[in-house]
Amino acid sequence: MSAPMLSRGRRPSTAVGEDDFLKSREIKLSLASNRARLRTRSQSASSNDSSSGASYTGSSSGEEDEINPRDKVQKNSQGSSDFCVRSIEHAAFGRREIEIAEQEMSGLFALRKRAEAEKPLQGAKIIGCTHITAQTAVLIETLVTLGATVRWSACNIYSTQNEVAAALAEIGIPVFAWKGETEDDFWWCIDKCINTEGWQPNMILDDGGDATHLMLKRYPAMFNMVKGIVEESVTGVHRLYQLSKSGKLTVPAMNVNDSVTKTKFDNLYSCRESILDALKRTTDVMFGGKQVLVCGYGEVGKGCCAALKGMGAIIMVTEIDPICALQACMDGFRVVRLEEVVRNVDILITCTGNKNVVTRTHLDRLKNGCIVCNMGHSNTEIDVGSLRTPDLTWEKVRSQVDHIIWPDGKRIVLLAEGRLVNLSCSTVPSLVVSITAGTQALALIELYNAPSGRYKQDVYLLPKKMDEYVAMLHLSTFDAHLTELSDDQAKYLGLSKAGPFKPNVYRY
Amino acid sequence: MSAPMLSRGRRPSTAVGEDDFLKSREIKLSLASNRARLRTRSQSASSNDSSSGASYTGSSSGEEDEINPRDKVQKNSQGSSDFCVRSIEHAAFGRREIEIAEQEMSGLFALRKRAEAEKPLQGAKIIGCTHITAQTAVLIETLVTLGATVRWSACNIYSTQNEVAAALAEIGIPVFAWKGETEDDFWWCIDKCINTEGWQPNMILDDGGDATHLMLKRYPAMFNMVKGIVEESVTGVHRLYQLSKSGKLTVPAMNVNDSVTKTKFDNLYSCRESILDALKRTTDVMFGGKQVLVCGYGEVGKGCCAALKGMGAIIMVTEIDPICALQACMDGFRVVRLEEVVRNVDILITCTGNKNVVTRTHLDRLKNGCIVCNMGHSNTEIDVGSLRTPDLTWEKVRSQVDHIIWPDGKRIVLLAEGRLVNLSCSTVPSLVVSITAGTQALALIELYNAPSGRYKQDVYLLPKKMDEYVAMLHLSTFDAHLTELSDDQAKYLGLSKAGPFKPNVYRY
Amino acid sequence: MSAPMLSRGRRPSTAVGEDDFLKSREIKLSLASNRARLRTRSQSASSNDSSSGASYTGSSSGEEDEINPRDKVQKNSQGSSDFCVRSIEHAAFGRREIEIAEQEMSGLFALRKRAEAEKPLQGAKIIGCTHITAQTAVLIETLVTLGATVRWSACNIYSTQNEVAAALAEIGIPVFAWKGETEDDFWWCIDKCINTEGWQPNMILDDGGDATHLMLKRYPAMFNMVKGIVEESVTGVHRLYQLSKSGKLTVPAMNVNDSVTKTKFDNLYSCRESILDALKRTTDVMFGGKQVLVCGYGEVGKGCCAALKGMGAIIMVTEIDPICALQACMDGFRVVRLEEVVRNVDILITCTGNKNVVTRTHLDRLKNGCIVCNMGHSNTEIDVGSLRTPDLTWEKVRSQVDHIIWPDGKRIVLLAEGRLVNLSCSTVPSLVVSITAGTQALALIELYNAPSGRYKQDVYLLPKKMDEYVAMLHLSTFDAHLTELSDDQAKYLGLSKAGPFKPNVYRY
Amino acid sequence: MSAPMLSRGRRPSTAVGEDDFLKSREIKLSLASNRARLRTRSQSASSNDSSSGASYTGSSSGEEDEINPRDKVQKNSQGSSDFCVRSIEHAAFGRREIEIAEQEMSGLFALRKRAEAEKPLQGAKIIGCTHITAQTAVLIETLVTLGATVRWSACNIYSTQNEVAAALAEIGIPVFAWKGETEDDFWWCIDKCINTEGWQPNMILDDGGDATHLMLKRYPAMFNMVKGIVEESVTGVHRLYQLSKSGKLTVPAMNVNDSVTKTKFDNLYSCRESILDALKRTTDVMFGGKQVLVCGYGEVGKGCCAALKGMGAIIMVTEIDPICALQACMDGFRVVRLEEVVRNVDILITCTGNKNVVTRTHLDRLKNGCIVCNMGHSNTEIDVGSLRTPDLTWEKVRSQVDHIIWPDGKRIVLLAEGRLVNLSCSTVPSLVVSITAGTQALALIELYNAPSGRYKQDVYLLPKKMDEYVAMLHLSTFDAHLTELSDDQAKYLGLSKAGPFKPNVYRY
Repeated sequence: MSAPMLSRGRRPSTAVGEDDFLKSREIKLSLASNRARLRTRSQSASSNDSSSGASYTGSSSGEEDEINPRDKVQKNSQGSSDFCVRSIEHAAFGRREIEIAEQEMSGLFALRKRAEAEKPLQGAKIIGCTHITAQTAVLIETLVTLGATVRWSACNIYSTQNEVAAALAEIGIPVFAWKGETEDDFWWCIDKCINTEGWQPNMILDDGGDATHLMLKRYPAMFNMVKGIVEESVTGVHRLYQLSKSGKLTVPAMNVNDSVTKTKFDNLYSCRESILDALKRTTDVMFGGKQVLVCGYGEVGKGCCAALKGMGAIIMVTEIDPICALQACMDGFRVVRLEEVVRNVDILITCTGNKNVVTRTHLDRLKNGCIVCNMGHSNTEIDVGSLRTPDLTWEKVRSQVDHIIWPDGKRIVLLAEGRLVNLSCSTVPSLVVSITAGTQALALIELYNAPSGRYKQDVYLLPKKMDEYVAMLHLSTFDAHLTELSDDQAKYLGLSKAGPFKPNVYRY
Repeated sequence: MSAPMLSRGRRPSTAVGEDDFLKSREIKLSLASNRARLRTRSQSASSNDSSSGASYTGSSSGEEDEINPRDKVQKNSQGSSDFCVRSIEHAAFGRREIEIAEQEMSGLFALRKRAEAEKPLQGAKIIGCTHITAQTAVLIETLVTLGATVRWSACNIYSTQNEVAAALAEIGIPVFAWKGETEDDFWWCIDKCINTEGWQPNMILDDGGDATHLMLKRYPAMFNMVKGIVEESVTGVHRLYQLSKSGKLTVPAMNVNDSVTKTKFDNLYSCRESILDALKRTTDVMFGGKQVLVCGYGEVGKGCCAALKGMGAIIMVTEIDPICALQACMDGFRVVRLEEVVRNVDILITCTGNKNVVTRTHLDRLKNGCIVCNMGHSNTEIDVGSLRTPDLTWEKVRSQVDHIIWPDGKRIVLLAEGRLVNLSCSTVPSLVVSITAGTQALALIELYNAPSGRYKQDVYLLPKKMDEYVAMLHLSTFDAHLTELSDDQAKYLGLSKAGPFKPNVYRY
Repeated sequence: MSAPMLSRGRRPSTAVGEDDFLKSREIKLSLASNRARLRTRSQSASSNDSSSGASYTGSSSGEEDEINPRDKVQKNSQGSSDFCVRSIEHAAFGRREIEIAEQEMSGLFALRKRAEAEKPLQGAKIIGCTHITAQTAVLIETLVTLGATVRWSACNIYSTQNEVAAALAEIGIPVFAWKGETEDDFWWCIDKCINTEGWQPNMILDDGGDATHLMLKRYPAMFNMVKGIVEESVTGVHRLYQLSKSGKLTVPAMNVNDSVTKTKFDNLYSCRESILDALKRTTDVMFGGKQVLVCGYGEVGKGCCAALKGMGAIIMVTEIDPICALQACMDGFRVVRLEEVVRNVDILITCTGNKNVVTRTHLDRLKNGCIVCNMGHSNTEIDVGSLRTPDLTWEKVRSQVDHIIWPDGKRIVLLAEGRLVNLSCSTVPSLVVSITAGTQALALIELYNAPSGRYKQDVYLLPKKMDEYVAMLHLSTFDAHLTELSDDQAKYLGLSKAGPFKPNVYRY
Repeated sequence: MSAPMLSRGRRPSTAVGEDDFLKSREIKLSLASNRARLRTRSQSASSNDSSSGASYTGSSSGEEDEINPRDKVQKNSQGSSDFCVRSIEHAAFGRREIEIAEQEMSGLFALRKRAEAEKPLQGAKIIGCTHITAQTAVLIETLVTLGATVRWSACNIYSTQNEVAAALAEIGIPVFAWKGETEDDFWWCIDKCINTEGWQPNMILDDGGDATHLMLKRYPAMFNMVKGIVEESVTGVHRLYQLSKSGKLTVPAMNVNDSVTKTKFDNLYSCRESILDALKRTTDVMFGGKQVLVCGYGEVGKGCCAALKGMGAIIMVTEIDPICALQACMDGFRVVRLEEVVRNVDILITCTGNKNVVTRTHLDRLKNGCIVCNMGHSNTEIDVGSLRTPDLTWEKVRSQVDHIIWPDGKRIVLLAEGRLVNLSCSTVPSLVVSITAGTQALALIELYNAPSGRYKQDVYLLPKKMDEYVAMLHLSTFDAHLTELSDDQAKYLGLSKAGPFKPNVYRY
C-alpha cells in the first residue's frame, strides 16, 4: 500500500474539523512529538558529539540555568532586546554552525547570490514559524539578504537549536524560540512575532499552520492585509484547504509541500538513504541476504526497496494499488500479502500512510528477532498499542530500540515505538533541506511580487517554472551541466528556452 | 532532454494544421514507414525464422500470387465473403498464431473471462482500424466475446499479418486488410468497414485517426450517431484535440495513450528491455565498461540508463530540464553537455523528443566505432541528412546497420538510419501490447455504457479506476497478490475499497 | 550447483581414456556439434544478414560449387598453391571482414604494435589448429607479424569462415580448411599442416588437442622436437593432463584455459551479456517481474543472475556448494531446491556443469509457458532425452526454439534442445575473443623464448605476469588509466613495479 | 590498487624481523590502537546507549573503583577464584549480553548442537588469547560444550567487555582480562593462562600471536607438547610464517585468516555494509549524485563500490593491477589516476593496502568539503602526517571527524585521522564474527583430532571441506536450502556428495 497522497502518507486524520481550532491544535501537538525528533544535522552540527542521534539540539540545555527565557533580560551586542532566546551568549557557537550549514546548502546560497542585487523581497514583512536550526537560519538570512524584514518563532517546542536562535538574535533578527517551550510559551512566542507595535506583516511562512491560524483568530484585520502565505507541511496544507473550502481563506496561499522537487527528494531519494541509516544505527543489522517486507510501494516504499536491493537484501512488497503493484513487479519485487510471508521476514517496514497495517495478529506470528519499523505515517501504521498487554515484556535495549518479548522467549525488535524511524533514528540530508528552503523562498518571492489578480484567495501549487528553478539552483552541487535548447529546437517543441519544460501532469 | 510530453516525445510536428486533412495524412504516412517496422512478435510467431527482425508477417508474401485481393473472390468455410484478405487458405496458420498469443496476453484474457457473462458490449457496433497482428486479433475476438459486432481494417499498409487476417475472416469477422496495400487500397479498406448496407456503427477504435477522419469527412451524419471514439496513438490523439479545439468533435473521445499503465509500460519498462535487445541484435556490442551517452532523461531515457547500468556500462546523461537532470544525478549518472564528452563515448542514444540533438558537428567529432541510435522521436533526433555528403561513404553492413566512413577512415555505426531503434531493431513485449489492448477494451466499455451526460463532446483520459483495473488484470501474470483495505482502513484514508487509490496528480 | 572446475563446467566425460584416441575423438566430435554454433560475430560480419544467428560463415556455401576443395586446383595471386580453401576468389571479401575485426580487437592489435620491432616469434614454426574466423585471422596475422611461420587447419568441421580462409591463403598463409569438411577431410587438413617437405614445426597452437594428438601418433619424432604446445580448450587441456599423467607428454604445454582473464571474461562477464541476448532473440520474453530459477551459482550463474537482476527479474538460485550458496544469499538471491519452486518459475536456467539437473519429473511439474535453457555444460544438464516420449508433442516454433506440449495442453519452451544457449542463440563478444587470442599469443611467446629448463615436460598455467599483461593490453579499449607504484610503495609492498601484483591464490 | 594479499591489505610491514620479539610486539601494539576500536556490537549490546560507537565495552568503567583487578580478591558463586576480571558482580549483565549474542550467532550455535554429543574437543586443553566480547564468549562456551577445558586472556588491552568477562568467570571459566590493562597486566594475564599448576595446555587459539610467542619464549618445553595452534589475524599469521621459515615452529599451525568464508565476509560483504554506515554516522552525507573515488579494486574496494553504486553515487576507481582494473571496467566504473580527478571528487576512499596513496599534494588539490577516509590498511594509506603543518588548522567537529582547514578557507573532512574507518566508525556484523568463530572452532577440532602425520610442523590453510562446513552452518540463518548431489551426479562430477566441491584454486 503506497501513500495515497503525493506526500508520503502523512495525511492527517479526516476527523480534523475545519474550524475546530483546538482539536486541530491537539492533533498537531501529537504530531509534534514526532517532529521533535526531526534532525537535519550538518556534518559537524554536534559540537559535543554526545551521541550519534538522540539530541544534538540544545544538548547543553541540562547545564544551563533553568530560568524561563521570558523572565530573563538579554541584549545583543547592538543593544537590542527584541528577541527571546535561551542564552544570547551562545551566539558565536551558533554562528559557526550556520557557517558550516551554508557550505552544504549551496543551492540556497546560489539563490541568495542571484537575487541579492535585485532585492525581490524589499518591503516584505514576513512572519516565520518553522523549526529553528542551522539550516533554517540560512533560509532566514537569505530572506533578509533579499530585502525582507522578518520576525521568527518556532513551530515545535522541542526542535529549536538554542545556539542558532542566539546567533540570529545577535545580528538583530527578532527571534522568539527555545528548546523546551511550554504550550503557553509556544503561543506567546508566535504572538510576539505577530503583534508588536508598528508592525503590519504582509507575508507568512508557516510550517504546520499555527502562525496562520493564530493570526486569523486573534488578529483578523491584520490577517486580511497579508499578501500571501507559504506553507510547507502536510498538516498545514490540509488546514489551508479546509479554510479554503469553508470560505475563510481570505489570502492567497502556496502549498510547497507538493512541488516535484520537494516530494521526490523528501520521499524517494531521502528515504533511500535514511532507511539504511536508521536500521544500522539502531540495530547494526547486516542487510545482505535478509528477507525484507516493505508494506507500500509509493515513493517512500520505492526508496526503501531500491536501497535494500543495492545491499543484497531479498525484498517483498505489499500493495493495495494495482498500478503500484505492477511497478513493484517490474522492479523485481514479489508482491505478496503480509499474512503469506509474516513467518519468514527478518525486517518489516511500513510505508503505507495507512493505519493498523501491522496488527497484533501479525506481530504474534513474526519470527524471533524480526525488526519492525515504520517509515510511513505518524505512528499509526503499526498497532503498537496492541503490544502493551501483560503477557508481553518490553525491554529497552537502546534508545529508540525495544525488544518485545513473548512468553515463549520470542523477541521482536521494535524501533522508535512505531513512530517514523527516518525522523527518529536517522538524519535528513542537508540537500533535502536546502531544496525545501529553496521552494519556500521562491514561493515567498512569487506571492509577494505577483501582479494583483494572478493569485486569488485560494491554495496554489508552486508554479512549475519555480519548481524547475529550485532544481536548477542545486545542479552545481553535482557539477551537472544543463543543455540549452536552440531557438529552432524550442520552436519545434513549442517551449520557451527557459522552461517550464513539462506539462503539469508530467509524472517524472 | 526528456520528451516534453508524457508520451515518449512522439509529438507530432506543430505544423500539422487542424483540418488540413491531406497534409495530416501525409505526415501520418511518413510515420507509417516507421510503424511498419513495429513488431510485437510472440515467442513463436515466426514459423520460418527468416531473420531476427525484418518481417515475419507475410514472410511468404513473395511466394504468393500477386493478384490484388480486391480482385479475388474468396469465401470462408461458412460461405461468407464479407471480408478481403490476402488468402483465406492461410487461416489455420493464423489461428495457431492467435492461440499462442492468447497464452501471453493473460491480462486481456482475464478481462474476457470476467465480462463474458455480462456482455458489456452487447449491441456495440465497432469500427476498428489498427495494426492487424496475432495480438490485436486477441483484442478483436475479446470485443466480440463481450458482445460487440465489429468491422476491421488496418491502420498501416505494411503491418498486417496476412495469416491472422485470414483467421479472423474465417470465423466470420469482416476484415479488410493485407500486407502491402496501396494508398488507394488503404482508404478502400477503411471505407468498406464504415459503409456497408444495414450497418450503423456506434463506436470507433482508432490508431492514428484515419477511420475517424474518413467517417467525419465522408459520412458526417453517420459520425454524429457514434457514441464514442477510442484512440491509442499520439498522432490520433493530437488530431482529436485539434478537432475538439475547432469545435468539430461532435462525439466523446477517449485518449488511452496517456493512461498511467500505457505510458509507464510503453516507455520506461519497455525501453529498458528494448535498448539492450536492439543494440545486441544489430551490433553484438559488449555493454560492460562501455561509455554511453543518453540524451534525455525522461521515461525512455530512464529506462535505457537503468538497463545499461545493470550491464556494467558507464553512463552519462544530457538534459534541458533541471528537474530531470537532478533525478539523473540522484540515480548516479553524470549530467553533461554533448559537446563535453562527444570525443569519448562508445554509444550515443537519443531519447529527447527533440530534433537535431545530434548534429553533423557532433558526428564529426565522435570517435571511431561509436554506435549512434535513436530511441526517442520519429527520425528527427539525429541529423542523418547531414551525413549524406560526398565526403562520407555509407556502407550497409547488415540490415538496419550502416557504417558511415569519414575520409580519415573513421567509422560511425548508425542504426536504423536514425529511426526508432526499439521499433526497427527490437520487439515490443506482449505484456505491453496486452496492457494497451486492455485500456482500449475498457475505454470502449466505459464510453459505450456511460450514462448520458457523463461524457461530452470532448477528449477524455481513461478514468483512473479503469487504469487501475487494467493493471489489476495483469497482476496474475506475476503471481502478485494485492492486499485489500479493511473497512476501517478505507474510511481512515477516505478511499473506496475498490479504488481509485490515488488522486489524478499522483506521479507514480 | 556451480561448475566444479574453473571453467564453466565444460568438463569432459570421465570416460575419456587417455590413449583411447578414437574414442576421445568421438567425444570431441560430439562436442563439435555444439562448437559449430559458436559465433563470434563482429558488428558487420554478416554482409547478407541472413538470420540472427544460424550461420553467417559461409552463408553462401549453398550457392557454391559442390566440388571438394581437395579436388580443385587453386592459386593465389602470388602463384602459390600451398593451401586448400573453398574458393580463393572470395579473398577480398574475407579481407574486409578481417579489417573490421581488427578494429574490435584493439588489445591484440596493441600487442602486435608493441612486439613488431622485437619479433619475439622470429624462427617459430607454428602449427595452428583452431576455429578459422575473422577474429582468429587477426591472431594468425599477429603471429606472423611477430616473426612466426605458420601452417593452419580448422579444429571444427563446420566453423570455418570460407572467405576468411581465402583471405589468409591469398597473402601466402598455408591454410587448409573449409566449412563442411568430412571427417576424412578434417584429418587430411591437419596432416597437411604437419607433414610437408622441409618443415619441422616447433610450436603447436591447439584448440581441442587434435593437432597435438595426430602429431604424437603419426610423427612422434617430429613431436619430440616441438618446443611447446599452447592449448585453449577444456577438452584439450584435459587430454594434456592425461598425457602428462601417463608420462607421454614429452613437451612443455601451456593451459591458457584457466588464466584469470580468460575465465572471468569467458564465464562471468560474457555470460552476463549472453543470457539476456539468447533469451530475447529466441523468445522475446520480457524480463521485468519474471520469476527465474538459476541452477548453479558459479561464475556463469553469477553472471546470469547479475544481468537478470538488473532487468527487474525475481531470481532464485539452487546450489550444492554451501560457500556459493552463501554468496548467493549475500547477493540478494533466495537459495532453494528445484522441487520447492518448480511450479512457479517462468524461466529455468542451468549453469551447474552437472548432468540431469532438470529431470522429466521436474519438467512435468513446470508451469505452462516456462522457458527452459542451459548455460552450463554440453547438453547434459537438462534431461532432454526424457522428453522424447510418445505422450509429448514437439513443435518447432522457430530455429532453436521447441514447444514441448503435454497432453493437457501445457507447453514448455525448450531452447537449443538443451545445448548451450549462449553458444547456440547468442554471440561471443569480440572483446572476449581478443582476450583469449592475447593469452594464446603470449603463451606462444613465453614457451618459445623461455630459457631451457624453465618449463619441463608438463602442463603449465599462463604466468600471472602474462595474465596481467593481457588485461593491460585491453585497458585502452576502456580508456582506463592504470596507476603506477612509486619505488617506495613497491618496496613497501614487496612487489615489482611491473607486477605480478598478486599471489597465485588470489581470488579476484 | 587492490590489496596485494588475500587479506585486505593488512599486511604487516616487511620490517618485522622474524625473531625480533620486542619489535614485533611494538608493531602489534600500534595495531592494537586500531583494534581497540573494533566493535562487534550486537543489536542490544549497549545497555546504556552512550553513543553510536565510541565504546560500549566497559562503558561503566569510569564509575568503577580504580583498584587494579590483580589486587582484588574475588570469588564466583561456586567459590572459585581462578580468574581475574574487573568485577565479578557484573556477571548477570554479561550473561544477558551473551544470550542476546547467541541469537545472532546461529551458525556457531548450530555447530554446538551438532557436535555436543560427540564432544570432539574432549581432552583438549586450550589457551585462548582473543578479544573478549559477547560474541567471543559464545565461541568460548561452544568450545567448552564440545568438551574442551580452557583458560582465556585478552589479545588487546582495551577491547575487553568487563561484564562478559565476569559472566565467563562466574560459570567457572578461568578468564584473565579487563578493559584498560597496562602492558604489564597484559603479559601477566597471558602468563596466568599458560602457567598454572597441573596444567599442560595442548592447543592454542591466538589472535595476534602473543600467547604463542610468550609460551615459545618462556615455556619452550610446554610449547613442544602443544598439538596445534589456530591463528586468526594477519599479524599472527605473518609471525607464524616467519617462525616456520626460521625453523622454530615445532607445532602444526592453522591459518584461518585466509579461509574463503572469512576473507569474502570480512572483506567484500562486510565492507559493503560498513562503508555506508561509517560515512553516514560520521558525516550524514547524502550519497546520491556524489562523485566518489575508490582507490583499489580488491575485495574491499569492490564492496565499497557495490554499496555506493546502489545508492546512486558516481564512482571512479584507481588501480595498479590491470586485471582488477579490467574488472572495474566490466562493473561499470571508470578507471582513472588520482591526479586526473582529484579536483572533482566529493568522497575519497582508500582500500589499497599500500602507503601514501593520498599525499599532501593530492590533499592540497582536493575541493572544499571533500570527505577523505581509509578502508584499507592500518593508517598508512593517507599521509596524515603531512597535514600536521602550521599553515593548516585542525578542527575536531565530532568524534572521529576532523576538519582540516587551508589558509584560503578550504576544508577537508578527515575521518578517524586516517585509520580504518570501518573499524573506527562502524560496527562489524555479528554474522561475520560468527563465521570467523566457526572457522576457529573447526580448526581446533581438526588439529586436535587429526591422525598423527596429517599435519607437520608448518602453517596450514583450513581444509576446504571445513571452509564449506562453516558456510553450511550459516545457511539456515538465511533459510537457504542446499541441493544434494545424487549418487549418479557425484560420480559424474568425480566428487564426494559431502564435498569438498571445488579445487583449491577455485576463485569464487
